[in-house]
Amino acid sequence: MAKRLVIALGGNALGNTPEEQLRLVNETAKTIVDLVEDGFEVVIGHGNGPQVGMINLAMDFSSNNGGGTPSMPFPECGAMTQGYIGYHLQQAIQNELISRGINKNCATIVTQVVVDANDSAFQKPTKPVGMFYSKEEAEAISKEKGYTFVEDAGRGYRRVVPSPKPIKIVELPLVEQLLQAGNIVITVGGGGIPVVEEKGKYRGIASVIDKDRASSLLASNLKADMLVILTAVDKVSINYNKANQLDLAQMSVEEATRYISEGHFAAGSMLPKVEACIDFLNNSDGEALITSLEKASQALKGQTGTIIKK
Amino acid sequence: MAKRLVIALGGNALGNTPEEQLRLVNETAKTIVDLVEDGFEVVIGHGNGPQVGMINLAMDFSSNNGGGTPSMPFPECGAMTQGYIGYHLQQAIQNELISRGINKNCATIVTQVVVDANDSAFQKPTKPVGMFYSKEEAEAISKEKGYTFVEDAGRGYRRVVPSPKPIKIVELPLVEQLLQAGNIVITVGGGGIPVVEEKGKYRGIASVIDKDRASSLLASNLKADMLVILTAVDKVSINYNKANQLDLAQMSVEEATRYISEGHFAAGSMLPKVEACIDFLNNSDGEALITSLEKASQALKGQTGTIIKK
Repeated sequence: MAKRLVIALGGNALGNTPEEQLRLVNETAKTIVDLVEDGFEVVIGHGNGPQVGMINLAMDFSSNNGGGTPSMPFPECGAMTQGYIGYHLQQAIQNELISRGINKNCATIVTQVVVDANDSAFQKPTKPVGMFYSKEEAEAISKEKGYTFVEDAGRGYRRVVPSPKPIKIVELPLVEQLLQAGNIVITVGGGGIPVVEEKGKYRGIASVIDKDRASSLLASNLKADMLVILTAVDKVSINYNKANQLDLAQMSVEEATRYISEGHFAAGSMLPKVEACIDFLNNSDGEALITSLEKASQALKGQTGTIIKK
Repeated sequence: MAKRLVIALGGNALGNTPEEQLRLVNETAKTIVDLVEDGFEVVIGHGNGPQVGMINLAMDFSSNNGGGTPSMPFPECGAMTQGYIGYHLQQAIQNELISRGINKNCATIVTQVVVDANDSAFQKPTKPVGMFYSKEEAEAISKEKGYTFVEDAGRGYRRVVPSPKPIKIVELPLVEQLLQAGNIVITVGGGGIPVVEEKGKYRGIASVIDKDRASSLLASNLKADMLVILTAVDKVSINYNKANQLDLAQMSVEEATRYISEGHFAAGSMLPKVEACIDFLNNSDGEALITSLEKASQALKGQTGTIIKK
């Protein structure tokens, strides 16, 4: 049976403008289809930081400055990025499959991910989104809509949203069915559209789910053989950027946990990736791999990358 | 075996703002789940005119007026609407399924639809989109980007895009697989993301595919038992809004074709719906139904609506 990979794509696999993204996804598609050719079953999660920021900002800007369009709630902006990024990715992957004569299909499932309304993250929003406001504007909007604002690097005030933990993938059964039918599936885009479950019903909630965490949950739920986090570096390092930097070929959960406590991994960068891998290892029988987009196929042959095992 | 319905939802099933849409989809979901309870297999297509206009306009407005975000190509705006509308629809339908204790799932597949680059529609763009410009601005953009502009009702110049005929649904196999697995599937949103096929590869092209035409193609391809076009009226009428208005319980393809030639159906309103039904009847063994969103379940029991048969 084909080994099942959940691949988490980072910002370097996509782009900041539609033109750049359309160019970058062609490279990303080559990596993905290499893995398909290597015999792996592939399901893809991806980030959406720059894209959801761009859409939220444009909708706010147009709404606030006479564009005549409504402002857009945050979960809806996330849903838009799933369509936007998913379209580019699935088109590029489908084109690459066709050009190599591989008879498989690829599509994006619009995906909601449940978070807990009582997650402590909601008490402490951290993720800046959308446009910059003056102190007075920020206070007025905060009063009207209850948003939290923080002063951002001297450039003004910016809304911050929480980053709660993903607990359930609503459309998981459909992802599983499409995988079993032999397709390449793109899901939990941007970490998923964040929703809460209230009296058995789902409702969107303004927040951003970390895409590595969502991909880790996806990998556990799908009983993936491997969670593959693709980023800008070939290997995870300790003493990163120091004279004694050491690139790791593998680490155990125990070692990874110790490296975290020793402060080796930067918050918002390598730390959430290593944590997502540990979470997956604690909830599955699989392994995890962190490597670069370019080296993915080689890393899966054991030639580079950092493998994390129990 | 359950009868398979392809349902085309019109603008009245959705809304012009996110808040309105979130409210309206709850009613739409009741209609859809009524049909599921009645034992039908359901696949959903929907329009996106107001939504793609809104997103395109906001992205243009922000890009042109210092919002610091890039302008967004038209196919990408369409992809965003599939995420945005699909999210609302699938959430509302899933919630309705849960509240009735029906163990089924619903999701949106981001869907590309192929059009012919030589379609005569590309010579004559007709669909106004995005923001209003002065004559000078329109001429400058036209020179730079090759867009076509028309003067729109004294309010300024507006870009027009073509409305070509849909010829192939790229993600069709996945839609079929999900249907066969018992799910409710949302696809060809806004008529599908328009792409052309060049040297075996897909590429987005600025245009809008009519959602009734795309739903008709979907129904033919899926060998649906019925194409159901849901709109604002219970029945199709001849001599509409005249003293001798006649509401039709049914019509044959021959009658429908005669009514069209007699000018009974308004362009951009009932005409494309009746044409989509005729296309489906000419390419399948099924029947077509045009009725209102509210009366869908009754109409499928033969109590109202207009049935179109060969």
